[in-house]
Amino acid sequence: MENQLPTVKPDLPSGVRDLLPADAIALQSVVVRIARVYESFGFVPIETPCLQRFGVLTGGDPKFNKSIFRAQVVRGAEDKGVALSELGDDDTALRFDLTVSLARVVAAYTDLPRPFKRYEIGRVFRGEQAQANRYREFTQFDFDTIGSNSILADVECLQVMYAVMSALGIENFVMRFNTRKVLNGLAEFVGCKNAKEMFRIIDKLDRVGLKGVLTELQRQPVNKWDEGALAMTDEQAAKIAAFIGIRSASSADTLGELRSFFGEENETASTGIAELEAMVKNLKALGIPERCWAVDLSVARGLDYYTGPVFETYLTDVPGLGSVLSGGRFDGLTSRFIAGSNIAGVGGSVGIDRMITGMRQLGLLPEAKSVTTLLVTVFPDSAELAERSMQFAQTARSKGIKAEIYLGQDTTLRGQLAYARKQDVPYVVVVGPDEAASGKVQLKVMASRIQTALTEQEVFDTISQ
Amino acid sequence: MENQLPTVKPDLPSGVRDLLPADAIALQSVVVRIARVYESFGFVPIETPCLQRFGVLTGGDPKFNKSIFRAQVVRGAEDKGVALSELGDDDTALRFDLTVSLARVVAAYTDLPRPFKRYEIGRVFRGEQAQANRYREFTQFDFDTIGSNSILADVECLQVMYAVMSALGIENFVMRFNTRKVLNGLAEFVGCKNAKEMFRIIDKLDRVGLKGVLTELQRQPVNKWDEGALAMTDEQAAKIAAFIGIRSASSADTLGELRSFFGEENETASTGIAELEAMVKNLKALGIPERCWAVDLSVARGLDYYTGPVFETYLTDVPGLGSVLSGGRFDGLTSRFIAGSNIAGVGGSVGIDRMITGMRQLGLLPEAKSVTTLLVTVFPDSAELAERSMQFAQTARSKGIKAEIYLGQDTTLRGQLAYARKQDVPYVVVVGPDEAASGKVQLKVMASRIQTALTEQEVFDTISQ
Repeated sequence: MENQLPTVKPDLPSGVRDLLPADAIALQSVVVRIARVYESFGFVPIETPCLQRFGVLTGGDPKFNKSIFRAQVVRGAEDKGVALSELGDDDTALRFDLTVSLARVVAAYTDLPRPFKRYEIGRVFRGEQAQANRYREFTQFDFDTIGSNSILADVECLQVMYAVMSALGIENFVMRFNTRKVLNGLAEFVGCKNAKEMFRIIDKLDRVGLKGVLTELQRQPVNKWDEGALAMTDEQAAKIAAFIGIRSASSADTLGELRSFFGEENETASTGIAELEAMVKNLKALGIPERCWAVDLSVARGLDYYTGPVFETYLTDVPGLGSVLSGGRFDGLTSRFIAGSNIAGVGGSVGIDRMITGMRQLGLLPEAKSVTTLLVTVFPDSAELAERSMQFAQTARSKGIKAEIYLGQDTTLRGQLAYARKQDVPYVVVVGPDEAASGKVQLKVMASRIQTALTEQEVFDTISQ
Repeated sequence: MENQLPTVKPDLPSGVRDLLPADAIALQSVVVRIARVYESFGFVPIETPCLQRFGVLTGGDPKFNKSIFRAQVVRGAEDKGVALSELGDDDTALRFDLTVSLARVVAAYTDLPRPFKRYEIGRVFRGEQAQANRYREFTQFDFDTIGSNSILADVECLQVMYAVMSALGIENFVMRFNTRKVLNGLAEFVGCKNAKEMFRIIDKLDRVGLKGVLTELQRQPVNKWDEGALAMTDEQAAKIAAFIGIRSASSADTLGELRSFFGEENETASTGIAELEAMVKNLKALGIPERCWAVDLSVARGLDYYTGPVFETYLTDVPGLGSVLSGGRFDGLTSRFIAGSNIAGVGGSVGIDRMITGMRQLGLLPEAKSVTTLLVTVFPDSAELAERSMQFAQTARSKGIKAEIYLGQDTTLRGQLAYARKQDVPYVVVVGPDEAASGKVQLKVMASRIQTALTEQEVFDTISQ
C-alpha cells in the first residue's frame, strides 16, 4: 500500500460514526440480550440487504418525500456515472427502515408461515441533515408478528417490550400505549378530516407542550396548497385539550373517563376503548407490574401506517431522551405490493442508539475496553520462551479463559504490564527464564498488584474462581 | 399504508439477497461461534459505518479502479440529485471491505492500544456484475492485529484460523501458507520487474492450472500500455514451474528444497524461508495437527497490500469452493492517511457466504426454520382461556423455554398443530376448557405424536430433559 500520493484525511462523512471497542462491546451486550428475548417468544431472524430497489422504497408514490440515499455504481475514481435523472425505480437505493423490507419479504415469499414472527437487526440510512444524536446511518432492531389480527399479538408486543427492558436491567420505565382507533374516534368527534396530520401534531405533545399542540392545530393555511394547516376552531381545540387531559392515576379510571368523554355514539372510539380494555386486562393477568405501563391518550406515533394500538417506552430516570422502544399495529402492510392484500402486522423497534445513550446515563453498560481476562507476557529474544507463552495462552483458552499473549514491540516486563493496565486486563502471567526453570509462572493480579508463583493448574483455578 | 397507486414488484436489485429464517439462523450460529473464538484470543469488536468518504475509499488515487457504489441523498421520489461529476472526495460511497475502515480507525484514533486487536463483522458492497455465488452486498468477518511485527502474530493468525474451523465442527481442512518474501525472492531470482502482476498470475494456479499460469506469464504485450504482459522467457517460466513444483509431503522437506532452489545468495528469499521455518516450528510446538496445515508455495493472494505471510483455508471435502478463510500480513496499512507511517498489521477474514455454502454441503448447519421449543394453543372465543395460554407460555419462558402462543387465525386444534408441524416445533401444549377444569394440560410430543395430561411443572420437566 505504499504510494507517493498526497495523504487523505482519515475522517468520516457527516452523520455517521465509529463505535470503538468500549462502545461496540456495550452494543453487543445489549444486542445479545434483546435477541435472546425476541427468540424466547418465538421470533426468528431474517436478514435483508441494505440495497433495495428505489421503487420498492418509494412504493412507486410520486409524493414520497423522505430523504434517502440513492446508490450508483462507478468504476474507479474517475468514473462520473450517469445522471441520477437517468436512474429509475429498478436502480438501487439504501433502505431507510426494516419495515419496508419486511413487507417485501412477506409479499415475495408466499410459503412463509402465518403468523410469521420475525426479528431483524440492521443498518438503515436516512438522508436528513445530521444533528446531535441523529445519525444518517444507524441500527434498528425490530420484531414483528405478521398475519395475526388477535389482540393477543398486541398484548404480546407489550410483553416483549417489558421483557426487553427487564433483560437490560432497566428498572424504572413506563410503556405508554394508546390505539389509533380511539384517535380516529377523536377525529370524527371533533370533525377533523385530516386525521393523520392531527395525530402527527398530537404526537409532538412531549416536545412542544399542550399550548404548542393547540396552536398548531388552529394554524390557518398559508396558501391553498397548505394541506397541513388544520385551522381548527376554538371549540374543536378545546375538545382535543379535554381529550389529552384525560390522565387518571389508574388505567381503569382513564378508560372510564374516556367512555364518558365519547358517550355511546362513537363506534370507532368504542372499538378502540374495548381494545384498550382487553389489553389492560391481559397485562394484569400476566402480572406485568402496573408501574411499568399506562394508557396514555397523547401517544399517537408520527408514522402514517399505524392502524391500531401504538406503544412507546420511556426511561423514567432519563427525561428528555424520548421513546427507546416503540411500535404498534399496522394493517395492510403489503398493499403496495399486492393490490387489496390486507395482511395484519404488529411489532416494535428498539432505538438501539438511544437505548445505549440512556443505559450509559444509568450506569447500566459495561465499560470494558477489552474482553481479555489473562495476558501472557513474552520474554524477548527467546523463541523457546515465546513458544511457552503461546502454549500457556492456548491451554488457558482451552479452559475457557480469554487469553492473549503480548504481541507488541515493548520487550520490557514493565511495558507489557502497562499494556495490560491500559486495557484493564485483570490478570497477567509472566513467563521468563526463571519460571521456565522452576516449572511455575508468576501470576499477577492487576487490581491488588499481588504476584504469586503458581503452577499452570493453580493459575487457572485462581482465575476461574 | 392503503393507497390507490399501481402495485410495485416485491423484488430485489440484482446481486443481493434475503436470508429467510432457516438461512439467518444458520448464519447466526456460525457468527456466534466465530466471534467467540476471536474474543478468546483478545480481539475486541468495533463497528464502522457502511457510508464512507469517497476519497478515503480510493485513497485519493486517480488510478483506483474498483467498481464501487457512490451514495447520494435525494429528497423524495422526484428529486434527480446533482450530477455525479459534481460530487467529490468528501461525498459518500459504500465501503467495499473492512480493511480500509480499519486503517482509517487506526489513523484517526491515536489513543488506541498497540497492539490493537480488533474484529469486525459487517456488510460490504461491490459494484461488480452479479454472478452465481458472487454478491454485490455481502458479509465480511475480519480479525486483525495492528502494530505487531512479531512472527508470533502471524502464528496466532493460523491459530485463530484453526480454532475457527474447529469451532465450526469442520474436520477436514488445510490451511495453506506462504510468504510474500519468498515470492519477492522468486521475482528477483527470475528477474521479473512487475512482482505484483506475477503474484496475481501465480495466484490463479488452482483455477487455470500450471499451463495456464505459464502461458499468462509468457504473454507478450498487445501494445505499449499493456503493463500486465510479463513476456517471460522459456527459461524464466521454467524456473517458476520448478518453484511451484516444490511440494513435499512434509513442510520440513519443502523448506529444505526451497533452500536448495534459491541457494545462499538470495537474501529476500532467505528471510522468507526463515519466517516460514519459524511458523512451522511454532505450529508444531502448539500441537496444531500437521494434516491441517501446509507450506504451499503457490499461495500468493491476489491483493496488492500483503507484504509477509499469506494464508488460505480449503475444505478438503468441498473441492472447487475456494478459500473460506484467508489473510496475511500487510505493513504500511495507514500510509494513505499518514505519510511515512509504517504500521504493521496481520489478520484474516472469513468469507461468511462461502463458509456457509461449504458447511451446508457438509451437513454441518442447523436446518431449523424456527427457534421455538413449545407452542401453546389458544382456545377460540374465550378471553379467559386465552389468558391461561398466555400465562402458561410466560411461565415456560421464565424457565428458559422458548415458547410461543398460537397467534394465527385458525381456531381449530388441528390447524394450530399443523402450524407447529410446519415450523418443526417439537412440543405443543393444549390449553382448553377440559384442561382448565382438570388443572392439567395436554402435552403433545410432535415427533412421537404421543399426548399426555400433565401438570405445568411436569410439562417443564419433560421439555427440559
